[in-house]
Amino acid sequence: MEVVILAAGQGKRMRSVLPKVLQPIAGKPMLAHVLGAARELDAKRICVVYGHGGEVVRERLDAPDLSWALQSPQLGTGHAVQQALPHLTDGSLALVLYGDVPLIGVPTLRRLAQAAGKGRLALLTVELDQPTGYGRILRDGAGRVQRIVEEKDASDAERQVREVNTGILVAPVARLRDWLGRIGNDNAQGEYYLTDIIGMAVAEDVEVVTVQPDAVSETLGVNSKSQLAQLERLHQAAIAGRLLDEGVTLIDPARIDVRGELICGRDVEIDINCVFEGRVELGDGVVIGANCVIRNTLIGAGTRVAPFSHLDSTTMGEACVIGPYARTRPGTVLGQDVHVGNFVEIKNSVVADHSKANHLAYVGDADVGQRVNIGAGTITCNYDGAFKHRTVIEDDVFIGSDTQLVAPVRVGRGATLGAGTTLTKDAPPEQLTVSRTKQLSISSWKKPVKTK
Amino acid sequence: MEVVILAAGQGKRMRSVLPKVLQPIAGKPMLAHVLGAARELDAKRICVVYGHGGEVVRERLDAPDLSWALQSPQLGTGHAVQQALPHLTDGSLALVLYGDVPLIGVPTLRRLAQAAGKGRLALLTVELDQPTGYGRILRDGAGRVQRIVEEKDASDAERQVREVNTGILVAPVARLRDWLGRIGNDNAQGEYYLTDIIGMAVAEDVEVVTVQPDAVSETLGVNSKSQLAQLERLHQAAIAGRLLDEGVTLIDPARIDVRGELICGRDVEIDINCVFEGRVELGDGVVIGANCVIRNTLIGAGTRVAPFSHLDSTTMGEACVIGPYARTRPGTVLGQDVHVGNFVEIKNSVVADHSKANHLAYVGDADVGQRVNIGAGTITCNYDGAFKHRTVIEDDVFIGSDTQLVAPVRVGRGATLGAGTTLTKDAPPEQLTVSRTKQLSISSWKKPVKTK
Amino acid sequence: MEVVILAAGQGKRMRSVLPKVLQPIAGKPMLAHVLGAARELDAKRICVVYGHGGEVVRERLDAPDLSWALQSPQLGTGHAVQQALPHLTDGSLALVLYGDVPLIGVPTLRRLAQAAGKGRLALLTVELDQPTGYGRILRDGAGRVQRIVEEKDASDAERQVREVNTGILVAPVARLRDWLGRIGNDNAQGEYYLTDIIGMAVAEDVEVVTVQPDAVSETLGVNSKSQLAQLERLHQAAIAGRLLDEGVTLIDPARIDVRGELICGRDVEIDINCVFEGRVELGDGVVIGANCVIRNTLIGAGTRVAPFSHLDSTTMGEACVIGPYARTRPGTVLGQDVHVGNFVEIKNSVVADHSKANHLAYVGDADVGQRVNIGAGTITCNYDGAFKHRTVIEDDVFIGSDTQLVAPVRVGRGATLGAGTTLTKDAPPEQLTVSRTKQLSISSWKKPVKTK
Repeated sequence: MEVVILAAGQGKRMRSVLPKVLQPIAGKPMLAHVLGAARELDAKRICVVYGHGGEVVRERLDAPDLSWALQSPQLGTGHAVQQALPHLTDGSLALVLYGDVPLIGVPTLRRLAQAAGKGRLALLTVELDQPTGYGRILRDGAGRVQRIVEEKDASDAERQVREVNTGILVAPVARLRDWLGRIGNDNAQGEYYLTDIIGMAVAEDVEVVTVQPDAVSETLGVNSKSQLAQLERLHQAAIAGRLLDEGVTLIDPARIDVRGELICGRDVEIDINCVFEGRVELGDGVVIGANCVIRNTLIGAGTRVAPFSHLDSTTMGEACVIGPYARTRPGTVLGQDVHVGNFVEIKNSVVADHSKANHLAYVGDADVGQRVNIGAGTITCNYDGAFKHRTVIEDDVFIGSDTQLVAPVRVGRGATLGAGTTLTKDAPPEQLTVSRTKQLSISSWKKPVKTK
Repeated sequence: MEVVILAAGQGKRMRSVLPKVLQPIAGKPMLAHVLGAARELDAKRICVVYGHGGEVVRERLDAPDLSWALQSPQLGTGHAVQQALPHLTDGSLALVLYGDVPLIGVPTLRRLAQAAGKGRLALLTVELDQPTGYGRILRDGAGRVQRIVEEKDASDAERQVREVNTGILVAPVARLRDWLGRIGNDNAQGEYYLTDIIGMAVAEDVEVVTVQPDAVSETLGVNSKSQLAQLERLHQAAIAGRLLDEGVTLIDPARIDVRGELICGRDVEIDINCVFEGRVELGDGVVIGANCVIRNTLIGAGTRVAPFSHLDSTTMGEACVIGPYARTRPGTVLGQDVHVGNFVEIKNSVVADHSKANHLAYVGDADVGQRVNIGAGTITCNYDGAFKHRTVIEDDVFIGSDTQLVAPVRVGRGATLGAGTTLTKDAPPEQLTVSRTKQLSISSWKKPVKTK
Repeated sequence: MEVVILAAGQGKRMRSVLPKVLQPIAGKPMLAHVLGAARELDAKRICVVYGHGGEVVRERLDAPDLSWALQSPQLGTGHAVQQALPHLTDGSLALVLYGDVPLIGVPTLRRLAQAAGKGRLALLTVELDQPTGYGRILRDGAGRVQRIVEEKDASDAERQVREVNTGILVAPVARLRDWLGRIGNDNAQGEYYLTDIIGMAVAEDVEVVTVQPDAVSETLGVNSKSQLAQLERLHQAAIAGRLLDEGVTLIDPARIDVRGELICGRDVEIDINCVFEGRVELGDGVVIGANCVIRNTLIGAGTRVAPFSHLDSTTMGEACVIGPYARTRPGTVLGQDVHVGNFVEIKNSVVADHSKANHLAYVGDADVGQRVNIGAGTITCNYDGAFKHRTVIEDDVFIGSDTQLVAPVRVGRGATLGAGTTLTKDAPPEQLTVSRTKQLSISSWKKPVKTK
């Protein structure tokens, strides 16, 4: 099997400087979804047909397993597939896909491929309640496909047909080469239509078989931002359905967005309005509160994430207590039973088991031991204006509130830092370290008073 | 009236370690919803039939007014009700409910109970557009129920019947005892079906009357996480509908989640995507901004809560100004016209009228007087690593920014604390208290510079 | 053209102290939407008919171009329009609108006005699938409107008619004056119905023409909070549709709320669950993350706003990096490439190009130069309990973490403030300024230990 993906359309109706096939569904260009399907089919070759101005497509998505064919000017779908022919091998089957039909499913394509073979042409068709605008599949009395008639050329009776052409098909490369060499552009648009090969196949007694997709949404194309949004929601609904089938509790399947891969253990619960990006893995019994945004993060079993948390590129152990309003940034590694509370930011730091930063703190470029208590308002001063430095906090340390740790600095095991300390040198283990001046009251003090 | 609730199903399709009837709708186990309905009916007795492995159900929901019957093995619904018979009293009516049919409504059940009595059997049925899979209600020419035919045993004509059995019924206990003693399991599943008593009733000229529920959703059962999510949304839509009927303004009825009891005064407005848990009471004219999470909280008239606030177990007076990003934790009591601003956490504290903590602060275990201004970055150091201590701030105090109050400590009436103060001893009234060192500039200072 | 807007209805079913026509759609009173449509039509005169208790309507929405007519008591729609007659001019056309039909569209009204004229009466009608409850449009064999029959007076055949009266019409003022002087109240309600003028027009051979609205939603009225919410969602869906047509990428068109004017450049992307209020302008390539609330704000091209940001009355330049959890308040002006990070509040301040406040800070009443780094925990102490003072931070300053700037104060160009500094006097340029005491460790220190 060899795959041709038509990706040259400009998509003016998208009203974007980005070529249409780079517009994202679930955070990933539409074309990347189609490429993903092609790769899952173990295609021997994947050829992408791109258009004038579409170099950015090639730059963005190029990979060793892809070949690229430029279609310029763009003279129709048949012409587009012609550009790919030099890359295809006689004796193979060619599957034609579309860069703007992003939800095509691998099981559907496998069935289509199986239906082809033995010299047959396999066409993906779909029954629509509202077929208006699509090419209708016309069959003879025995049910054999005879031809495809476009909306504008169809008789009233033909318009009643609800089975329509999706454009997706599998054909023997050699046949395709022959047919495409002979199709014409004698039509209103002056374009070469891939569809025309169906009539040629029928005329040459090549059997045309049809396959239906698992879901109609697999065949929907995108020509506007409105359609893009519709497919986004269909795709998200399908993902939510799969999560529910796996046993995940979703409080509202219409309010979850997964842009990547979300892997869930047993008895995971996800509250409303969460967004998952990249690869996120949630262990058994993990509970994600409302309105969380989680990206490229691994969360251990039994951890609870309270609402409004924003977790990015973080690994956290089991039974952690996170949020609300916790923000972890790339390079954060939390052990077991770590608590990260409200308005706390952690970045590029390792925090070991049973340690806590419960309130208003910034922990950056730090190594924090076990059973450490980081008081409210603690800040690691990791940046001196030019360089970043690390802070080391050993096991069993108690950091008083509003303390600044001016890195590089080390707090020894079991040390206590008094509230308000500015720590500029290492703090010895087990001792209390402070930087504190005498508290002074001024009895003659007059408050500022508002005057008119 | 006595109630039997069948709650023994394992619910393998839920793919959960939690028994099915403990799966939550609106934050409460499905069975608890059904128990709530049974209790509102003032049932003389409520018997829950639980299954092997369902001890956790009993542990979680046991109460003095419940009796429990173990069904093991599980040989069908008729067999399940048989297990409850020893708990039931001849001369009573028995209502059979299901632990996985959580939205059953009390008004519907009252009508069902009224329809029963005088020796009749009352059956809850429902008309479905898509009755496939359900037992159909067959009636004679006079409209009298004759029997229930299961999908697989139904003729084509019988399958056209859209009235289906819900399984919920009321029957005289004595009759039930007799019938259940005689039902067989001569069917494909080898199970004893409760449904079979309908035929027996008809055969014995017991009148079978039917009642329809106020809403079809009341009769929907849950066998998968997908169905659980569907019922969650139906339940939330019903709650939103009731709030709207009461005059609450909901900016989007599809984006509000109420998991408990939400009591609203006049002219309450709730913006998008809010979650209410436990018992929440909102006074007249309260406005709740977008994306708030509010639990077990009482909010006085005219208070405005800005977006992204998270309020838990808090009591707040009238005309407060809360959020955005305000977080109040259990034990917070706010007076009137209190302001709690962004990135402020308050816990186990009393804040009296007209006091303000508008920015980045942690107020824990504190008693705050009237007209107090708590500056940005203020932190009550309430924890010494072993014990929690209280901070007392009397009326008319002004706390400068970034101050630490090391509890136990008291700030006297009218005192001012200078910015950056670490307060370790009580501050006298009306005076300015500071702990401040001399500001020093070092002219020889060389900034760190990035080198290659 | 002169416009009469009926706005006297009390709206008891709204269960609100606010008069019905002040209930908001998209944050604006319903009546204000209708007034907006009337003004777009360049009406020569707009007369609002208000009712007993509706003085608050007049107070809230009065403007020089409006005249007001009190209807008290309220004796029906015909009576209501009568109250406006003294304000209308013979020779003009009168358009009758309704303060509780807020989504009426200007293009529809233009077509209605065009259809009127030449002595005709133009009536806005609509085809409903479920016409129950509405007055039906009855036509003769030639399709000419004959009369309107109310639901309760309609025969079974008449009830089959799906074209219904919306109440919105255009008629010559002189005719209207004549007809309204003659309509009676001989009906079940004892009210004077505007509808009755249709019959009079037909009887006098005045041609009655009908026009259909662009969308049925334009003609929907609001009598309950439930209907208010429905129209809110229809209105928001229409706005989302327009944004999509303009090329904006909306991740979920069902989860965006625009309450005012949202102007978007090219290639703008808006993630789920955002709220826009007042006038918001987003430059080319702006990306708005999930769950943002943005009000009266101008955002320069290429700026990215991360989730959970709350921006109010702010102007920001190009290529800024904002959030997550950024909060900007009125009077904030940011230059280009400014970074405002998590848990940072900025108010009434100017921050110049390339400056950053990335973590936990409060910047109020400040002028911040270029390339300034504001460390985590920095606080401008702008309020002394009576007055607000400004802080000036010149270019290239580095402010260490947890610093308090006690305003009025100035930090000279290129200065560095050490972590934990309380700055009470100006800091000289290029020097390091600190207020720091010696760090001290106490080896005899005994930690508090929990005892039983």
